[in-house]
Amino acid sequence: MSKFSNLLTPACLIDLPRLIANADRMAAVADVAGVALRPHVKTLKSLEAAQIYAPLPMPITVSTLAEGRAFAEAGYSDILYAVGLTPNKLPAVNALLENNISLTVLIDSSAAAEALADSADNLSGTLNVAVEVDTDGHRAGIGAESPVLLQIAAKLAGSSKLNLVGVMAHAGGSYGAFDSEARQHSAQQECDKALLASARLEEAGFPVTMISVGSTPTALSGITHEGITELRAGVYATFDCVMAGLGVCQYQDIAISVLTSVIGRQDEKGWVLVDAGWMALSRDTGTASHPTDCGYGLVCDVHGNLLDGWYVQQTNQEHGVIVHRDGHTPTEQNFSYGTMLRILPVHACATAGQFEKYHVTRDNVHTQETWNRINGW
Amino acid sequence: MSKFSNLLTPACLIDLPRLIANADRMAAVADVAGVALRPHVKTLKSLEAAQIYAPLPMPITVSTLAEGRAFAEAGYSDILYAVGLTPNKLPAVNALLENNISLTVLIDSSAAAEALADSADNLSGTLNVAVEVDTDGHRAGIGAESPVLLQIAAKLAGSSKLNLVGVMAHAGGSYGAFDSEARQHSAQQECDKALLASARLEEAGFPVTMISVGSTPTALSGITHEGITELRAGVYATFDCVMAGLGVCQYQDIAISVLTSVIGRQDEKGWVLVDAGWMALSRDTGTASHPTDCGYGLVCDVHGNLLDGWYVQQTNQEHGVIVHRDGHTPTEQNFSYGTMLRILPVHACATAGQFEKYHVTRDNVHTQETWNRINGW
Repeated sequence: MSKFSNLLTPACLIDLPRLIANADRMAAVADVAGVALRPHVKTLKSLEAAQIYAPLPMPITVSTLAEGRAFAEAGYSDILYAVGLTPNKLPAVNALLENNISLTVLIDSSAAAEALADSADNLSGTLNVAVEVDTDGHRAGIGAESPVLLQIAAKLAGSSKLNLVGVMAHAGGSYGAFDSEARQHSAQQECDKALLASARLEEAGFPVTMISVGSTPTALSGITHEGITELRAGVYATFDCVMAGLGVCQYQDIAISVLTSVIGRQDEKGWVLVDAGWMALSRDTGTASHPTDCGYGLVCDVHGNLLDGWYVQQTNQEHGVIVHRDGHTPTEQNFSYGTMLRILPVHACATAGQFEKYHVTRDNVHTQETWNRINGW
Repeated sequence: MSKFSNLLTPACLIDLPRLIANADRMAAVADVAGVALRPHVKTLKSLEAAQIYAPLPMPITVSTLAEGRAFAEAGYSDILYAVGLTPNKLPAVNALLENNISLTVLIDSSAAAEALADSADNLSGTLNVAVEVDTDGHRAGIGAESPVLLQIAAKLAGSSKLNLVGVMAHAGGSYGAFDSEARQHSAQQECDKALLASARLEEAGFPVTMISVGSTPTALSGITHEGITELRAGVYATFDCVMAGLGVCQYQDIAISVLTSVIGRQDEKGWVLVDAGWMALSRDTGTASHPTDCGYGLVCDVHGNLLDGWYVQQTNQEHGVIVHRDGHTPTEQNFSYGTMLRILPVHACATAGQFEKYHVTRDNVHTQETWNRINGW
């Protein structure tokens, strides 16, 4: 055990008991639904953290092939790369196949299926392919009723190296769902569209083993998830101000924070300057459209207790400006020079992405344990 | 020489001829003004890149002590750490002093001066200290006429290990100056306030050797910078859409871009999906208040030619959504699956910060040379 004052700020802290509780919550949801959980490791990108919420031999979802490589080396053998594949990634994909990883990649067009089929002969093993289904117009994917679905299936069927496993859907629109009813609607739509696409494949003679859905808000929405084969979610492990703002968690569930020090104050403006700028917090302002705008993060004392009304309003590269929502003047007592604070991030994936390692805390004490992060692509 | 198609996207490219031209432009400004140039290495944080715009034995500015350590090891001996010092960084500061680095740190309060004076006996060498002067209410610093200036000077004078060298000012407000006249006003104000604070120190018997001013817009504003001792600037080496939007450079001067591949399209929405999301581009939307909002970056073809009107409108972690400003429909011809594009970043410091290395291009050809970046704190 060690004092926080021995850490050089800014530093990223992970609250282990909260991480465990968040992991348990999602595991229970999957248990009750009777579906597999395939955690997305993109938030912390850490083998050590994954031991808590995605212990071996769980299947995992990755956002980069760099994550795929690192997790494969650590023994994970069932990996879904959940970003539409591009041709220049085939050598990296093949390297995973050579290591006998059961790798599933994602496509959403005939062009991608054709390019993949054209290159498949060069693959060292069988590559699983899922078709991305768009459930809410949020991002990528084809419509569940689109004729492209069967065109893709037919193109993939032409290659013995390609194994069409099924469909994947991500209800990104659930990030705009501010109440339980809206989240349940989003979740049911995610399931329904994935099931419809899957049924169309089956009817056309293409057997389906993967019907994968999920986002943290939909996975935790409380619907039964009947008929799907697996749930995916990522940010639930740490949560963040976006998730708390949606009502998916409470602020006190947030397991990640940025330790920072007070550099100085501009009292007449009500500013506290800290050494966590956007290089530490990221530029994400994901709560700007929420009823409570958390700016670049909510401010806690060094023990993690929220300082009501204080948030990071502005950021430069290495400077953050903390203000009070109602214009209170920061005092010497609560914001003296050198005081350490913790910032609860707006978007955990973005904030964690600014760091190369995490410092683990337990019962608000720094344990001296650090976890490494896998950056890059 | 190598084809771009051998690179795994997203990848960060540096255009060497442009970097050299940008470096030459700033060097000429300092030459004409007859002042030292102390480049800020915070944008690329790369020893290899610094050989172009901050070759040894130039003095440099750093934004983290991690940069300070790496540049000190590479032979840089005159380093300004331009973020207000916090007490927990003293061991890292002292490690640089032990290596005989002429290190200057920054403070802007009596509390910081007192804390530093209280700890100075433990320092292994003499630590240079500059006082940050606020010139435009933008961020940190004391007013040039503030009584705190002389209080700080008096407190530092009490320790033989602390050497008050002078003042530093950064006209951050110049990022809101959209014409030459506004930039010149900002630059002159930056000089005037720094000179005023310096004169007050001198009058009070504290000799001044550092009167340091700068930001890219003010350094390139065309004023004489008479009386100051050194210019600081950083983003000029690469420039970005923010700088082009202000009129400080042209888009074709931008020396940094993110290579990305087309994942797919959502034609009915006019969307091109690419594999550069905010993890590659950052969440910076620094041109949102500009007459031309570049979103998360302007789109070029793989050779770096701007595709008029196309920009990255939305980002998720690993997805970017490209649209046309006037709603043009993306065609198979210009945005087919797998097509490589380059994105000119909105804010080079933020985008570069998302990468661990850069790929160097010359005459639009990938040279196979890579430069490493120093991340962390």
